Amino acid sequence: MYAYDTKIRVRYSETDKMGIVYYTNYLNWFEIGRTEFFRSLGMTYRSLEQQGIMLPVIEAGCKYISSALYDDIIIIRTRLEFLKKTRLRFYYEIIREEDNKVLAIGFTEHPFTTLDKKPVNLQKAMPEVYNLLLNCLNN
Amino acid sequence: MYAYDTKIRVRYSETDKMGIVYYTNYLNWFEIGRTEFFRSLGMTYRSLEQQGIMLPVIEAGCKYISSALYDDIIIIRTRLEFLKKTRLRFYYEIIREEDNKVLAIGFTEHPFTTLDKKPVNLQKAMPEVYNLLLNCLNN
Amino acid sequence: MYAYDTKIRVRYSETDKMGIVYYTNYLNWFEIGRTEFFRSLGMTYRSLEQQGIMLPVIEAGCKYISSALYDDIIIIRTRLEFLKKTRLRFYYEIIREEDNKVLAIGFTEHPFTTLDKKPVNLQKAMPEVYNLLLNCLNN
Amino acid sequence: MYAYDTKIRVRYSETDKMGIVYYTNYLNWFEIGRTEFFRSLGMTYRSLEQQGIMLPVIEAGCKYISSALYDDIIIIRTRLEFLKKTRLRFYYEIIREEDNKVLAIGFTEHPFTTLDKKPVNLQKAMPEVYNLLLNCLNN
Repeated sequence: MYAYDTKIRVRYSETDKMGIVYYTNYLNWFEIGRTEFFRSLGMTYRSLEQQGIMLPVIEAGCKYISSALYDDIIIIRTRLEFLKKTRLRFYYEIIREEDNKVLAIGFTEHPFTTLDKKPVNLQKAMPEVYNLLLNCLNN
Repeated sequence: MYAYDTKIRVRYSETDKMGIVYYTNYLNWFEIGRTEFFRSLGMTYRSLEQQGIMLPVIEAGCKYISSALYDDIIIIRTRLEFLKKTRLRFYYEIIREEDNKVLAIGFTEHPFTTLDKKPVNLQKAMPEVYNLLLNCLNN
Repeated sequence: MYAYDTKIRVRYSETDKMGIVYYTNYLNWFEIGRTEFFRSLGMTYRSLEQQGIMLPVIEAGCKYISSALYDDIIIIRTRLEFLKKTRLRFYYEIIREEDNKVLAIGFTEHPFTTLDKKPVNLQKAMPEVYNLLLNCLNN
Repeated sequence: MYAYDTKIRVRYSETDKMGIVYYTNYLNWFEIGRTEFFRSLGMTYRSLEQQGIMLPVIEAGCKYISSALYDDIIIIRTRLEFLKKTRLRFYYEIIREEDNKVLAIGFTEHPFTTLDKKPVNLQKAMPEVYNLLLNCLNN
């Protein structure tokens, strides 16, 4: 299955008084992962929104295995977990580059909606985008 | 079962370009919920840390039902979902005060650890805290 | 001069690995201060935006004197520093409630604009709002 | 004078309901700029902290000229504005890569301190670091 790796460096602002990355920042990184996943397919999430399609989050989850630290280089590995006509789910691994250790795994699920949050059948509304995503599951 | 309600007002910084609260902020609110849950029992999470016990997050999840908006008053309803000797799980409801609508539900699970993240048996290490929490399940 | 005090409690997510509040969060608190300043005058910043007037930030500054800690209660004292027809400046003091110590002082300056960021003469566009603000300087 | 350019891409979480980047995020970017400025000199801010030297912020300021948008590529241009034995000041320009437009300018000032926030004379404590920084002013 197609996976796309994005690298970021942990920001000081992302740490907390435990000295590690605050737990909600992993979900901010998921957003970066899916933004770059779209870009790797030759489109951008920004252009999807400009064409009137949004992917708000309806469910998210994360399991925390080990802690990311300030200045670590982090790989966000993003895969499509499933695709339906009206929604999709991304699956993420957060990996520390230095030792290839998986620090967290998680997912986000998104319906396709219009800008005023009406449901959209992506296969009908944007068949070329739907097919590009479908190919990610078959590769 | 014991539940504790905390009220906050949505901050401008918590919104995103969709005009609604960005999805990771609900998990920041969960932290406020459990902080105030502890306070309502007559202790503070700050004092737990000062006594050498931490509750890092090992798993978190959230389902998003409807959107919170800037300046909304939000109720964070926090319950203990389960308590074991070495970990616990909180359950949260995010409710818009104006119409009592549940906007999101979620959970966080936490092991008890020392400040250097070694596992702790809370029943042995802090029996009075353990029993206070146990009472929350039985009320 | 009219000053309005808002109280918040420091969130865990606002701390960093130094163990203190990360420096940009004081500016997030300034936003809370001015939101509540408007509310104390009987209007809301939300309703101003709904009426088509925004106050984007064109300059901000902060001097840091002492550190806020997790779970501290913080007073955000907000005053109007000056008011012109086309812009205003707020002045803030960040005070730790426990010992009344001033932890930081700062300001934000805002032009009045339309939703598409065209300049607005507030005295003409909303004379009643302008006069309410003007009274804050004279009290 | 030596300047170092770091590139980032605007995150969705950094936008607000105006559709633009929330104003405090520019100061988060300043932190990235100074982190990478240090790295470009062959040291890391992380290693400075590990050696017992911190640079907390005592003053920060930012002027906002134009708005950064979601998915923009942003250049953080960082220079040392001055260096004294006990403190330094960084100067930043936030530039949109696409059209080279300066979106914001700002500064942060930092004393040198120990981990428990006692003042440090950097020239005495770490002459090699002091001299590396001094060279940035003379180039």
